[in-house]
Amino acid sequence: MNAEIMSIGTELLLGRIIDTDAPHISRKLAEIGIDVYHRHTVGDNPGRLIGLLKTALERSDIVITVGGLGPTIDDVTIETIARFLGKRLVINKTILEDVRAYFRLRRAKCPAGSKRQAYIPEGVKWIRNRVGTAPGLVARYKGKIIVCLPGPPRELEPMFDLDVIPYLAKLHKIKWVLRARTIKTTGLAEAQVNYLVKDLLKRKPPTTVGIYAKLREVDLVIMTKAESRRSADRSIARIESIVRRRLGDNIFGCDDETLEEAVGKVLLKKKKTIAVAESCTGGLVSHRITNVSGSSKYFLMGIVAYSNLIKTFIVGVAPELLTKSGAVSRQVALSMAENARLAGRSDVGVGITGIAGPTGGTKAKPVGLVYIAFADGAKRVVRELRFRGNREEIKFQASQVALDVVRKNV
Amino acid sequence: MNAEIMSIGTELLLGRIIDTDAPHISRKLAEIGIDVYHRHTVGDNPGRLIGLLKTALERSDIVITVGGLGPTIDDVTIETIARFLGKRLVINKTILEDVRAYFRLRRAKCPAGSKRQAYIPEGVKWIRNRVGTAPGLVARYKGKIIVCLPGPPRELEPMFDLDVIPYLAKLHKIKWVLRARTIKTTGLAEAQVNYLVKDLLKRKPPTTVGIYAKLREVDLVIMTKAESRRSADRSIARIESIVRRRLGDNIFGCDDETLEEAVGKVLLKKKKTIAVAESCTGGLVSHRITNVSGSSKYFLMGIVAYSNLIKTFIVGVAPELLTKSGAVSRQVALSMAENARLAGRSDVGVGITGIAGPTGGTKAKPVGLVYIAFADGAKRVVRELRFRGNREEIKFQASQVALDVVRKNV
Repeated sequence: MNAEIMSIGTELLLGRIIDTDAPHISRKLAEIGIDVYHRHTVGDNPGRLIGLLKTALERSDIVITVGGLGPTIDDVTIETIARFLGKRLVINKTILEDVRAYFRLRRAKCPAGSKRQAYIPEGVKWIRNRVGTAPGLVARYKGKIIVCLPGPPRELEPMFDLDVIPYLAKLHKIKWVLRARTIKTTGLAEAQVNYLVKDLLKRKPPTTVGIYAKLREVDLVIMTKAESRRSADRSIARIESIVRRRLGDNIFGCDDETLEEAVGKVLLKKKKTIAVAESCTGGLVSHRITNVSGSSKYFLMGIVAYSNLIKTFIVGVAPELLTKSGAVSRQVALSMAENARLAGRSDVGVGITGIAGPTGGTKAKPVGLVYIAFADGAKRVVRELRFRGNREEIKFQASQVALDVVRKNV
Repeated sequence: MNAEIMSIGTELLLGRIIDTDAPHISRKLAEIGIDVYHRHTVGDNPGRLIGLLKTALERSDIVITVGGLGPTIDDVTIETIARFLGKRLVINKTILEDVRAYFRLRRAKCPAGSKRQAYIPEGVKWIRNRVGTAPGLVARYKGKIIVCLPGPPRELEPMFDLDVIPYLAKLHKIKWVLRARTIKTTGLAEAQVNYLVKDLLKRKPPTTVGIYAKLREVDLVIMTKAESRRSADRSIARIESIVRRRLGDNIFGCDDETLEEAVGKVLLKKKKTIAVAESCTGGLVSHRITNVSGSSKYFLMGIVAYSNLIKTFIVGVAPELLTKSGAVSRQVALSMAENARLAGRSDVGVGITGIAGPTGGTKAKPVGLVYIAFADGAKRVVRELRFRGNREEIKFQASQVALDVVRKNV
């Protein structure tokens, strides 16, 4: 069984929106062994839509359209599909009630355009929208399947994952599955990771390994195609154990796990609390740590000390130290870490000072120079780093290393 | 003249990479008046590639392929194009020298696969790659144009913008240009903005207005198609002035301007400094303010006070207040704002306290309840908000309102 995806919308075609729906659908279809050989983007144009639909239905078993289900007159997918199927549009009372309830809940008047969303081609199966107002559709046509989905990712993703995938999986006798696992590392450069898993990167299908470098993070993606989920997972586990042996504690997580979640886990496990005093990262380290649900259990305090005055009066760095070593120095980073720990009444303190740029650099202390310190009353660690990139990239890289230093030293 | 884009790559088709190349190409083509009606994604499969190429050349003047020019045997675009054109592949000495120089510069051995990149269809125009090793191609075929470009965005974008666009603009007598301007607002709900510019949203081409709701931000995009850039900009300016009259100071910026930049501008203009004490936003407000280059001129201090202990000892909120009103309250937000101002020795103080969730909510104080306060010694403002969404969405929405409160009250 194979599928073809049509993303519909003039905004997409003009390049004003990036399409993340089609990749999402592709990934999920691959997991249940449905091949996708073609994907298209077209505008909200009935003629071109029908032309493409015809071509797609000639070569594919399933055609999935995304978008064009909105309440405005630009949205023509439903009418076009109805015309193509030779069915008239009829109002569906349940959908209409859903749409009305949606606006009632938001204490808003239901606009006339939204009522239009309750019209669907006669006799066609529809899927309730958990998040928005546009329902999805599933139509049968000459032994083929046409699925129409709303465009906003927060509406499409639950509908596709929870309704369409189970439906297609039931129809389709699964012959193979594609599974992938991302092993995330930080602390090694891409060339180092490359060197350590050189042989694995050369593997031929069915089980392959790819390398993807991000900012201070290198990911390895193990992918495999197998007859069952179980045998796929077994092949992946075999390669994963080799990777784990070689990359050790540079691996911080898998798949959707974030570095800040890894930091949270280790702090919880070791029953330690943390406080952060940051200068050049400007609150990013605290922000990332507190993105993790439950972080209030271990994150006690963050101070963003941009000026020397604040470094002295709030964090408690000695003014002599600032004068002698300069605000961007090993010593000040350490003092920030130690004072953060004391001020925050926490077990661990982190101090970060540096130059995020683009201005403020000197020959001796250039843009990108950052000191990151860790202190827990017994151990003191400080690292000097020289990052490249723009302001936000430097902030992000510094936050990566800071989180990694905590993860590895707690 | 119109163009069709074919993104080539199995990784794309599997949804493991998000395609930003095709949107980039679409936007740039629109600016010189070349229409794009179809975009496709196919795998590295010669048969399907040729099939699609044929269909595309039947209806479009220009076909642009992206990707599949890499050094590995999976990359089949060049061979496929040569076969399609009926031309043999010949080695190009200049390209070969470029490829060798590329590796010499990186002190690496030139891999055999990379030498393959120096083979191009005989007699076809090629474009030097400024960043990587794969050259671009421009072939003429039965009065049509085929352009082949490398997939990595950092290679494609300069090649497309600096070589392909000028080439196509010269061939194509520009009859129209497409220009767009985004007017960004915060402080109004989508329905409110919709109501205020209802008539504009109904405009017919050439100058149209679209509405896009984000988290606590509503953007209006004015788009126009005109004979020249100048007349396009004039049409946009006319609509923009109407929009500005209607939405007033809810507009914080245009196009790439961010809310944090707008806040920075107003603080600089009024010569005011700021300090922030945040609880549920966890450092995000400080992070966003400090993303702006030069923010050290007005941003003095941020405190992330997650626990009551820190709210009392570092920020200076009276313990009685915390006991009486609770940490998430109007009074505590105000006290945080006032104490942030005093502790930070700044003109303006901001205090944020709330429940980001997913846990920690009660019936009286549910997840999403956030108090945001502003104090400058004379004026005190506090707002109660009830956000919906996940933890990160609630944090982001609270930061949006906090920045907006500063922007409007400084």
